[in-house]
Amino acid sequence: MKVTALAGGVGGAKLAHGLAQVLAPEALSVIVNTGDDFVHLGLHISPDLDTVMYTLGGLANAETGWGLAGETWSFMEALERLGGATWFRLGDRDLATHVERSRRLAAGETLSAITADFCTRLGIGARVLPMTDDGVHTMVQTDQGELAFQEYFVHRQWQPRVTGFRFAGLPGARPTAQVCAALEAADAVVVCPSNPFVSIDPILSLPGVRERLRGKPVVAVTPIVGGQALKGPAAKMLAELGVKASALAVAEHYGAALTGFVLDIVDLALRPAVEATVPRVRVADTVMKSAADRARLAREVLEFVAEISAVVRP
Amino acid sequence: MKVTALAGGVGGAKLAHGLAQVLAPEALSVIVNTGDDFVHLGLHISPDLDTVMYTLGGLANAETGWGLAGETWSFMEALERLGGATWFRLGDRDLATHVERSRRLAAGETLSAITADFCTRLGIGARVLPMTDDGVHTMVQTDQGELAFQEYFVHRQWQPRVTGFRFAGLPGARPTAQVCAALEAADAVVVCPSNPFVSIDPILSLPGVRERLRGKPVVAVTPIVGGQALKGPAAKMLAELGVKASALAVAEHYGAALTGFVLDIVDLALRPAVEATVPRVRVADTVMKSAADRARLAREVLEFVAEISAVVRP
Repeated sequence: MKVTALAGGVGGAKLAHGLAQVLAPEALSVIVNTGDDFVHLGLHISPDLDTVMYTLGGLANAETGWGLAGETWSFMEALERLGGATWFRLGDRDLATHVERSRRLAAGETLSAITADFCTRLGIGARVLPMTDDGVHTMVQTDQGELAFQEYFVHRQWQPRVTGFRFAGLPGARPTAQVCAALEAADAVVVCPSNPFVSIDPILSLPGVRERLRGKPVVAVTPIVGGQALKGPAAKMLAELGVKASALAVAEHYGAALTGFVLDIVDLALRPAVEATVPRVRVADTVMKSAADRARLAREVLEFVAEISAVVRP
Repeated sequence: MKVTALAGGVGGAKLAHGLAQVLAPEALSVIVNTGDDFVHLGLHISPDLDTVMYTLGGLANAETGWGLAGETWSFMEALERLGGATWFRLGDRDLATHVERSRRLAAGETLSAITADFCTRLGIGARVLPMTDDGVHTMVQTDQGELAFQEYFVHRQWQPRVTGFRFAGLPGARPTAQVCAALEAADAVVVCPSNPFVSIDPILSLPGVRERLRGKPVVAVTPIVGGQALKGPAAKMLAELGVKASALAVAEHYGAALTGFVLDIVDLALRPAVEATVPRVRVADTVMKSAADRARLAREVLEFVAEISAVVRP
């Protein structure tokens, strides 16, 4: 079974890592949000792509949820002394990714080609696919005005009140050929437990992506457990948009794009309501605290997908 | 007495540091070669400027002669893993200089303005002046073809046989207004013990620089001691250009630009020959092993300059 996962940052990377543990490398593609990408200090930074890449490579910093394990911070200290911007923390090792990627982009290579090469060098077997090689920039509309994503997310620590989102660069952007091929070849698509608004919606908004999901089992794993986001602003965003933060709200947000939804066991009571929205619902322990948790959830998701596939393609 | 020094890398930085120890900050300007500057990994790197800046700021790595003391190398390790170019060693702290300078250059600031700000932040009182804000690129003509300076100097470790030099970008380049002002205001100019061909000649070749030296005491300190360069390829270059490597050859190279020459005590026998080339000669211990050595040599150079000044402006 070929699986294509859609992922944003930390939560998405964890499930992608689970899938990578239980699937053969050639059976897994991960399409990653690049709407968070930005140029900082003259460097092209792809936060979600790096989180997925580092996580699949076994290099991620488990404590921070971003960056590399065993990181050092000499660059940041020296930058501060020179009066440079330090609100976006760049570790010394992490910096190599941004500098080398920026150099190769400036030399005319695509983000896709560079990512593929980095993954090979980091020993990652699954395909990690930036959703697009074009510039798509997630803008967060807030009570403090429209903010570039990292300005909202990191610099203002997601404190401004959200009123909406805009993906600058759409619809001129196109998913890459590899993204299209991965969607077409997929026996199932897994929407990882990432922020629906700023991690998954940019991918789904690219021309041709939703069309390529049709007729396939598409299973989302809830990023909201017990009304709370496991990480990040998803629950806060839902509340600010006037929706009660819950797994149900996520299921309703994705709506017809899904054929299945994985609900956390603590939200068992939401099952009937979710079933009114999504054809099939699975209840599982979706909290991934260890690498084994990731593999366990991935196995359960794949089992669920297999059941749905039997229905979708009888 | 206002002194303006011309400097390249390590040797020049040492004497500049000596001058900074014995002169009031407002009395010293150091004009630094930028012919070695290059773009590497997409970053603007100014090796001589950084060596002078780090040395005057008391931050230089005394062992290597380049880079920062207490440097860490995580970036380089990570870059190597990603397949990036590692022949030019960039420490984690040093990298902050290159990244922030590149960012500010891209934002439209001049190299001069950025350098001035960095120096203020690093607590450097003397003015450190890049010779130009225009692109001048020292090309080394060798038996292996014409090589960009860092390709010759670092990548090929100055092994190719030198046949000549070219300063690409001249004569379109101009010395900065600060450089012109520092030369005009100078009571004396000190040519530091730097490589005449690739550190000092680029400065002297800029339109208007030689003209501004006329009528002033201009004193050079030999970079060749006992027929050897204290550091770098100066002696090797002289030999390859068919000249016996000696302090005399340096004095003859600068020729009429000089009013005084500081010869090392081991080369006492060259004194008559140098005196046939340069009006005044001083013999001193020019080897600077410690910060105290630098100050001692600087004091001796200033004393010599004062003697010459009494002659030049009676």
